[in-house]
Amino acid sequence: MKIDFCNLQEVQAKYEEIQNKGYAMDLTRGKPHADQLNLANDLLSEDKDSLFNNSVDLRNYGEILGLSECRKMGSEIIGCSERQVIAGGNSSLTIMYQYLSSLYFDGFGKQPWSQEERVSIICPVPGFDRHFKLCEMFGMNMISVPLTGSGPDMDQVEDLIKKDSSIKGIWCVPKHSNPTGETYSTSCVERLINLPSLAKGDFKILWDNAYAVHDFKDSEILPNIFKMAEKQGVLDSVIAFASTSKITFAGGGVGFIAMSEDNLNNFLHHYSAMVIGPDKINQQRHINFFLKSGGIKNHMLKHADILRPKFECVHEWLLKQEHGTWTQPTGGYFVSFMSKPGLAKEIISLAAKSGLKLTKAGATYPYGVDPEDRNIRLAPTACSLEELHIAMEVFIVCLSLATLQIS
Amino acid sequence: MKIDFCNLQEVQAKYEEIQNKGYAMDLTRGKPHADQLNLANDLLSEDKDSLFNNSVDLRNYGEILGLSECRKMGSEIIGCSERQVIAGGNSSLTIMYQYLSSLYFDGFGKQPWSQEERVSIICPVPGFDRHFKLCEMFGMNMISVPLTGSGPDMDQVEDLIKKDSSIKGIWCVPKHSNPTGETYSTSCVERLINLPSLAKGDFKILWDNAYAVHDFKDSEILPNIFKMAEKQGVLDSVIAFASTSKITFAGGGVGFIAMSEDNLNNFLHHYSAMVIGPDKINQQRHINFFLKSGGIKNHMLKHADILRPKFECVHEWLLKQEHGTWTQPTGGYFVSFMSKPGLAKEIISLAAKSGLKLTKAGATYPYGVDPEDRNIRLAPTACSLEELHIAMEVFIVCLSLATLQIS
Repeated sequence: MKIDFCNLQEVQAKYEEIQNKGYAMDLTRGKPHADQLNLANDLLSEDKDSLFNNSVDLRNYGEILGLSECRKMGSEIIGCSERQVIAGGNSSLTIMYQYLSSLYFDGFGKQPWSQEERVSIICPVPGFDRHFKLCEMFGMNMISVPLTGSGPDMDQVEDLIKKDSSIKGIWCVPKHSNPTGETYSTSCVERLINLPSLAKGDFKILWDNAYAVHDFKDSEILPNIFKMAEKQGVLDSVIAFASTSKITFAGGGVGFIAMSEDNLNNFLHHYSAMVIGPDKINQQRHINFFLKSGGIKNHMLKHADILRPKFECVHEWLLKQEHGTWTQPTGGYFVSFMSKPGLAKEIISLAAKSGLKLTKAGATYPYGVDPEDRNIRLAPTACSLEELHIAMEVFIVCLSLATLQIS
Repeated sequence: MKIDFCNLQEVQAKYEEIQNKGYAMDLTRGKPHADQLNLANDLLSEDKDSLFNNSVDLRNYGEILGLSECRKMGSEIIGCSERQVIAGGNSSLTIMYQYLSSLYFDGFGKQPWSQEERVSIICPVPGFDRHFKLCEMFGMNMISVPLTGSGPDMDQVEDLIKKDSSIKGIWCVPKHSNPTGETYSTSCVERLINLPSLAKGDFKILWDNAYAVHDFKDSEILPNIFKMAEKQGVLDSVIAFASTSKITFAGGGVGFIAMSEDNLNNFLHHYSAMVIGPDKINQQRHINFFLKSGGIKNHMLKHADILRPKFECVHEWLLKQEHGTWTQPTGGYFVSFMSKPGLAKEIISLAAKSGLKLTKAGATYPYGVDPEDRNIRLAPTACSLEELHIAMEVFIVCLSLATLQIS
């Protein structure tokens, strides 16, 4: 039966019906579905002998920068030179932590951030909660700047930097941003690398390119910040991150960090105190896998085929209501939904009572506070298409109920 | 030809002879030899299907504490309960860093170490350079206390703690200590857990049990600090580390941290901001491997057979001279040699010129300074027995030359 999502009675009836279904669904995390993980199962069946055809003993200590061919893989994802990349362990989050730690304790000739009165970081919002958690841990002050659909509002960024000398960096998810899905435009990246703090060597662009190759439809091309920054003479300000977590195995991939060779040599001093070296066996498995399977781009086409229908499903359901606005990403893992102000918590709470877990309200903002209480991050990848249909119906019902109840 | 290592002329002649050999040998790092790594090669040939017989999808995100059976493995190595263990990534060093970071930034109800005027850590010497590097990074003041052959000099430790309230912890490698090979006695561990700072909840015993199951001869039994500390009501002061790096693959093992469940729950708050979860596939491979191969203890007997002759070789060569003293470990990875005072740098430099790399002088002391310049850490595991014979001859020649030249 088709419901009129503007009719409170109909919505209420549907909401009550849902309560009795005993649903247990989850749209919280940007996790790949088993169907996607299956695409990389040949990582596991690797012939043992092939792991010994290497000039280094993959089983022993050593190669702290990662295997050369694996660094090359990272450089292709990020768009830089192999010599600018460290191929690390299974998580780019851990490498981000380690890099921030090096700025905090070391500083590389500049004053370490631990000794600054105050260090502020610009956080485009809505953004990635784990970036915010890292800042909190290091006591970094977070300043929100809205995203525009093609990157952060650069007028505001430029203005803030003029006024506040404590600002030392900006978090960016430049492609298919988490959660808004947007890709930074050329003019946005131009303005980023032209910020005066960069020329002073006192600013870091934390470039978390988590979805660099994660298009599921034709997508805008992200400008190459390494090339642009090098031309501008500010390459030392760019620190990029990536991983194969959403390419091969989410829990068993390879994480990367990339930066100028000078930066990298400095960082290595700190990094080598924390890290004994990556799991080279897993790195070699990745190298072998992509050699056999036709490379990362080809592999990601298969992911796209799995993801596309899920995002279409979300979009089709959202079209059935008029209680908010939402993004239509061409890649990445999220749809960002904006309800009427003051409703996100209520919608999420109604959904929870209906057996649908949604990302905590406020999670996409620094300190966990969405000032307008309206952003809801939808992560449609982890469940099956069948479940997603049900989850989206529940979402629309809860959204409609919350909206109609206040009007 | 047999040389008289007390005859300067004979030693000089031999030293010159060695210069022309073009040797390239290395006794610096506690690395397993390929023969040892070969013992675990079945980790690599794991049947792919067996990795899917699990209630969790090993390939995806999740299980931040590690797989239950892998935590159990850690608990058996460390001697505690499974619920007290996190099974992490491939390096206990990284977990040590992460734990110190949590004390520094978080503090768990106590003042975070970052906010203390001064934090001092007792470092038994000679000790493990990477522990010292970690302290340096966090700006922790290191206070050396000599080892006695059965643990640190507890008179000194007790005395220091009475006088200096900035002392917040002690590094321990309690079994087959790096590099002295000694194992802490029951009375030493008793006195450690009875330190008054523990009862105040203001002290951490950083228990790096890196060689917990690494005996190659009959060894003294290390008392179980978890049981003793629990009985004493000071379990929150014990933080243990271990790994399978020197059990399976040095670069691709599993690292562990263990502590009271209360501590663990507190730590998890910090840990989960840095870590997305371990590589569960590698953990499951380890579980499967030890199920099939008869368990860790059995596996370590095979390591012992490879290591024993190497340590015997070192001892036999050292018996040929009278220029210093040395340890006779029954497990672990090192022999600790003490030359006459003021000679370690010179011996190491002579060896370098002869094609034999030795651990940097001072590395076994905080801040890289051996106050008497006499400790040399010998790591005989990484080379073959044949190479080791040559390396030890070179060492004895260089040692003798340096000693005779000053007398």
